[in-house]
Amino acid sequence: MISRNRIKYLRSLRIKKFRNEYRQFIAEGDKIVGDILRDHTHRIRQLVATGEWLSERQPKLDGRSDEILEADARDMAQITTLETPPAALVVMDIPELSPDLQEISRSWSLALDTIQDPGNLGTIIRTADWFGIRHILCNEGCADCYNPKVVQASMGALFHVRVHYTDLPGSMKDLRSDPSYGIYGTFTVGLPVYDVPGAQKGLLLFGNESRGISTELLPYVTARITIPPGRQENPRIESLNVAAAVAVVCSVFTRV
Amino acid sequence: MISRNRIKYLRSLRIKKFRNEYRQFIAEGDKIVGDILRDHTHRIRQLVATGEWLSERQPKLDGRSDEILEADARDMAQITTLETPPAALVVMDIPELSPDLQEISRSWSLALDTIQDPGNLGTIIRTADWFGIRHILCNEGCADCYNPKVVQASMGALFHVRVHYTDLPGSMKDLRSDPSYGIYGTFTVGLPVYDVPGAQKGLLLFGNESRGISTELLPYVTARITIPPGRQENPRIESLNVAAAVAVVCSVFTRV
Repeated sequence: MISRNRIKYLRSLRIKKFRNEYRQFIAEGDKIVGDILRDHTHRIRQLVATGEWLSERQPKLDGRSDEILEADARDMAQITTLETPPAALVVMDIPELSPDLQEISRSWSLALDTIQDPGNLGTIIRTADWFGIRHILCNEGCADCYNPKVVQASMGALFHVRVHYTDLPGSMKDLRSDPSYGIYGTFTVGLPVYDVPGAQKGLLLFGNESRGISTELLPYVTARITIPPGRQENPRIESLNVAAAVAVVCSVFTRV
Repeated sequence: MISRNRIKYLRSLRIKKFRNEYRQFIAEGDKIVGDILRDHTHRIRQLVATGEWLSERQPKLDGRSDEILEADARDMAQITTLETPPAALVVMDIPELSPDLQEISRSWSLALDTIQDPGNLGTIIRTADWFGIRHILCNEGCADCYNPKVVQASMGALFHVRVHYTDLPGSMKDLRSDPSYGIYGTFTVGLPVYDVPGAQKGLLLFGNESRGISTELLPYVTARITIPPGRQENPRIESLNVAAAVAVVCSVFTRV
């Protein structure tokens, strides 16, 4: 059975400070754990699961995790951040990523300026994966992508898409050194996203949920784009949810 | 000051059973309360706010709410479901809606089959509002649109879009009696959404977050549509988040 100290360690990974110190994070729930187990490219450090879950999956689990720990439902309830305790969770290493701007500049990527809601960030990572986007540049004001809520909302996409925490103005400046490279910022007023001339690469920039794109990033934006609202007879809301906006913009741009 | 009994009443409105019994719900936070106050079409039953918030806004509040109640920060923390207690909230009547299928059949509407996540439902209502959609048909398996998390995620759109809880197969059957009316179901395999012949009206149907569209609704679907994934070199996730899918489909269909 799992020790008190181990439970304490696993609970500590809810907090960014401890995730950064130990360079580990948790992915939980049957669906995501199943996906990680099937995808042999990821090293699993610890697999924590109920006896029933483990016995149903033996011997397939052999060698798939550095450690396998059995926990009862009460232990799982203590460890998890989910409302319904999962039957299984895994601990993985936080990858050491450094953004290769050369590679990033060759296709479509996202840049996120202070996207604070973990659900939004997770959904954006999932959407990026769907549309074939491999890199997301985030500034430090964004939610931490290893936050359990982000991991959950990303539905496994976090293991396919590289999320880089970086100096956003610096990266954007470097990317702009190629004059054919476009940085498309989304605003409430701009060129309708459907009317933007076709391109095969570029950076799609999205701003904070309430304040939009920061002033310091504006000099690097090559085109201001917008998602036009539908025909309205009545008053309507001021903006789309940022994750909804990412979905629309990605669907339009990556289709070219 | 606000009484213990009133706080108890307001707290009870977190729960669907009590919302249905009293036919009232809460909208909270500066942004949404401000929007409701500016929009004079909505009757406010109770406005509950801190003394500071109220004194800053007098005399503009005169006559805008049946009752105005002052509450201190501790009271607000007891009433709210938000992590950071808001300075103001309003209690409104749940409108008595009955879907007018004649009206619904004249433009684009959404149908939601068992969308259970409150954040997803709220985001979908917000997206519908943005794209000029006035009616959403939900089955009883959907989250309650007056759940505080839905109200929050909808960002005020709940006051522009009519969300009807209804017998979905029955409504779809009635709508199909017009042979020119299309019901577009979203699936993982289907006609790419970009290739669907243009139309000016129809029902856009979305299924449950994990199980998709229920079998009982399939006979009413006139076209199976899908959002094609981007080009991929690596494995990717199985689906888009449903609220992201709604955004893409609405952006394509309402633009025709």
